[in-house]
Amino acid sequence: MSDDSHTDTQSHCCGCADQSAAGPCGPDDLTSIRGRIAQAVRDVRERTPLAQSFTNFVTINLVANAQLAAGGTAAMSFLPDDVIDTASISGADYINVGTLLPFYKDALPQIARAFRKSGHKWVLDPVAAGIGKTRTEILRSFRAAPPTIVRGNASEIIALATMWGLISPDGTSRPAGVESVDDVDAAVEPAKTLATFLAQSAPDARAAVAVSGKVDLVTDGERVYRLPGGSAMMTKITGAGCSLGGVTATYLAVAEPLIAALAASLLFNRAGEIAETKSDGPGTFQAHFLDALWNLAPEQVAGSAIDLR
Amino acid sequence: MSDDSHTDTQSHCCGCADQSAAGPCGPDDLTSIRGRIAQAVRDVRERTPLAQSFTNFVTINLVANAQLAAGGTAAMSFLPDDVIDTASISGADYINVGTLLPFYKDALPQIARAFRKSGHKWVLDPVAAGIGKTRTEILRSFRAAPPTIVRGNASEIIALATMWGLISPDGTSRPAGVESVDDVDAAVEPAKTLATFLAQSAPDARAAVAVSGKVDLVTDGERVYRLPGGSAMMTKITGAGCSLGGVTATYLAVAEPLIAALAASLLFNRAGEIAETKSDGPGTFQAHFLDALWNLAPEQVAGSAIDLR
Amino acid sequence: MSDDSHTDTQSHCCGCADQSAAGPCGPDDLTSIRGRIAQAVRDVRERTPLAQSFTNFVTINLVANAQLAAGGTAAMSFLPDDVIDTASISGADYINVGTLLPFYKDALPQIARAFRKSGHKWVLDPVAAGIGKTRTEILRSFRAAPPTIVRGNASEIIALATMWGLISPDGTSRPAGVESVDDVDAAVEPAKTLATFLAQSAPDARAAVAVSGKVDLVTDGERVYRLPGGSAMMTKITGAGCSLGGVTATYLAVAEPLIAALAASLLFNRAGEIAETKSDGPGTFQAHFLDALWNLAPEQVAGSAIDLR
Repeated sequence: MSDDSHTDTQSHCCGCADQSAAGPCGPDDLTSIRGRIAQAVRDVRERTPLAQSFTNFVTINLVANAQLAAGGTAAMSFLPDDVIDTASISGADYINVGTLLPFYKDALPQIARAFRKSGHKWVLDPVAAGIGKTRTEILRSFRAAPPTIVRGNASEIIALATMWGLISPDGTSRPAGVESVDDVDAAVEPAKTLATFLAQSAPDARAAVAVSGKVDLVTDGERVYRLPGGSAMMTKITGAGCSLGGVTATYLAVAEPLIAALAASLLFNRAGEIAETKSDGPGTFQAHFLDALWNLAPEQVAGSAIDLR
Repeated sequence: MSDDSHTDTQSHCCGCADQSAAGPCGPDDLTSIRGRIAQAVRDVRERTPLAQSFTNFVTINLVANAQLAAGGTAAMSFLPDDVIDTASISGADYINVGTLLPFYKDALPQIARAFRKSGHKWVLDPVAAGIGKTRTEILRSFRAAPPTIVRGNASEIIALATMWGLISPDGTSRPAGVESVDDVDAAVEPAKTLATFLAQSAPDARAAVAVSGKVDLVTDGERVYRLPGGSAMMTKITGAGCSLGGVTATYLAVAEPLIAALAASLLFNRAGEIAETKSDGPGTFQAHFLDALWNLAPEQVAGSAIDLR
Repeated sequence: MSDDSHTDTQSHCCGCADQSAAGPCGPDDLTSIRGRIAQAVRDVRERTPLAQSFTNFVTINLVANAQLAAGGTAAMSFLPDDVIDTASISGADYINVGTLLPFYKDALPQIARAFRKSGHKWVLDPVAAGIGKTRTEILRSFRAAPPTIVRGNASEIIALATMWGLISPDGTSRPAGVESVDDVDAAVEPAKTLATFLAQSAPDARAAVAVSGKVDLVTDGERVYRLPGGSAMMTKITGAGCSLGGVTATYLAVAEPLIAALAASLLFNRAGEIAETKSDGPGTFQAHFLDALWNLAPEQVAGSAIDLR
């Protein structure tokens, strides 16, 4: 155990564990961040935390398998009584608004309110934000009972921040669909604004937003971390983003939001790179990707390139 | 680009691009067909068209992964507002009536009517046609708002054509189940009759029916194309048929119905053969099958045996 | 064909086909058991029986693929009219109470009553027994229309037996979740009591309970069979337990309950061991596991260690 324990409750300037290091943040602060990322990777493997998911039917199997491969355990539920009961033994939850069914319109707001009441941490994946009246109603309702982390592509992050009135619609962003039509760079300010809003709502004032793209972006509302790497093949299997959201919840069960979001994104990028070298196409890629999630050393994950600016 | 472009709107005798070649169709016309098949395979990889699916929960992941491996993109939806919104950015849709839920009884007819109104192209997979009162009601309702392509096994094609009053029940066909109990040959006339009916309902008078079996059969209502090959292992993984339906919708986003149905069936047969040689059982077969969908050259797909009679 | 045919309707002491062998049961009786296990494995491959499933959305694809890899065929349904229609052509059914939707509260009791009325055999997987009001109501309702086999982890078996009033709550067992918190040994008496209750309700007085754990346990209410082996990697993919339940239904379509439960558990343990030696992590493990289900010889399955006490 190091001083960088996930139970650290100090100021999160640059995620620095040492208060005296607060002030202008620079690349040196990354040493602390990296230590806490490695610890989160280790903690999940040692404690096998349960992270429950309410997620879409397309990729639900990969979400569970990725959580298991990262070292956690998985449970998927849709009925509010089931979800709320299971949340009492779950370290964090993951909610993904793909493949909506009619009863979700009432169930999801009810579940979010229950999480807010109990202070339960959760990750939101606003899949296809902007498409469909029902999805818009559900996503709008979360403004009053917000998640701890939002993970999405650039278009989804911009659509959610716009929907919640945190940024003005600039007329340049189109409905998100499930593939991003916006660049990660276009989402920097919306992501920071969204993370700040989430932190203001969080019991411990900590939150994060992760934007997936060619270069992933993670922010706690103050600093922006860019994570290069990964593999283009991750866009050729369905569910790379969803399973990243699920594994983010797994890490959130043992670490603070910024560290959880960074650890999950780094783990996925490294695993994608390894799987690409071992596979001949998307079918074998997925198998090797899960293997790599299982096999990567905490230091390999934490030692990856992080571009802080 | 060749004259065999998918945007060609000429007569579809044998799928010939050249009107002067109309008249008695023969094997020579296959040259034109093959060119357009290769073009469809290329177009999907270059344009990555979105094909949306409303499909069963068993194989929904494989449908999406097969569409991605063929070069397209995927989105799955079930709520009418979600499906109809997404259809506006989707090149074609795929509807599969497996694993019905109660609300589908109203949702699916509503969706089919919306597609008809907007002229949106779609592929129907009448899984288990003949089983269950609800499925029968849903499939019957599609007669008034028919798909562009129907893809199924012989029993399903016969059951659907009978249900729509296009052929007389001969008393020899049993309810379809999910495994065909009828031979592809028994489905030749029902498939032609069904395709003719679909073409009469289509805005551009083009439609197709694909029958999966040991030898696949594709027809536009006039000519019947038999596609030998494939692998018996395709019946030992769940969803080979469903994912073929999904990939047919992917090709339908860039090509006319006959070419889309031929291209998808040929791609699947070739991929099945390659995967069989590389695998030791159904688990590794599925991974290698997706790899082969990704790796096959357009000329390999288009150059396959097509038996025209 | 041997005397140990699955159509044998004699006394099931130790599963002995020979009445004269009844009395104190010992390891020698295992010879008969093994013969019938091998026969069940062969019969499934020769007859490709359909076993229908009503199962959770997380692992529904693996359940179907495992049933196909074992040699059977699969169909998944949720609407009562669909399930009851398909049951007429299905050798046995599998019901798994994970990922509940609202309409299941009425649908599942209705389906169980229909199975009871028609004498249709089915396997229950009481996933997460004890969690959620709706699940508890559904599982309680099955007491009046019980399954032929129950398969679960130790916590789920104890929770179900307690819920049905067959054993007194001892206050030591916690709600099951999807991961067992109880040891298989703690479930021996609850499993025997449960199996005895099931047998009393069965048309032919035969039933079984299978408890999955480090050492699996199968009982017909009289004798307890312990099955060592398997692979720890089976807990690192989602759905090993669910797919075991599905394959148990596949075997139940051709064999009596005790033999079906033993054959499925032994097949899974042997396949897990083979897959572990061939894989580098959970992704490749799953592919090799399905391959092994497909490739294992009946004698390899039946010749495995069985600890009778």
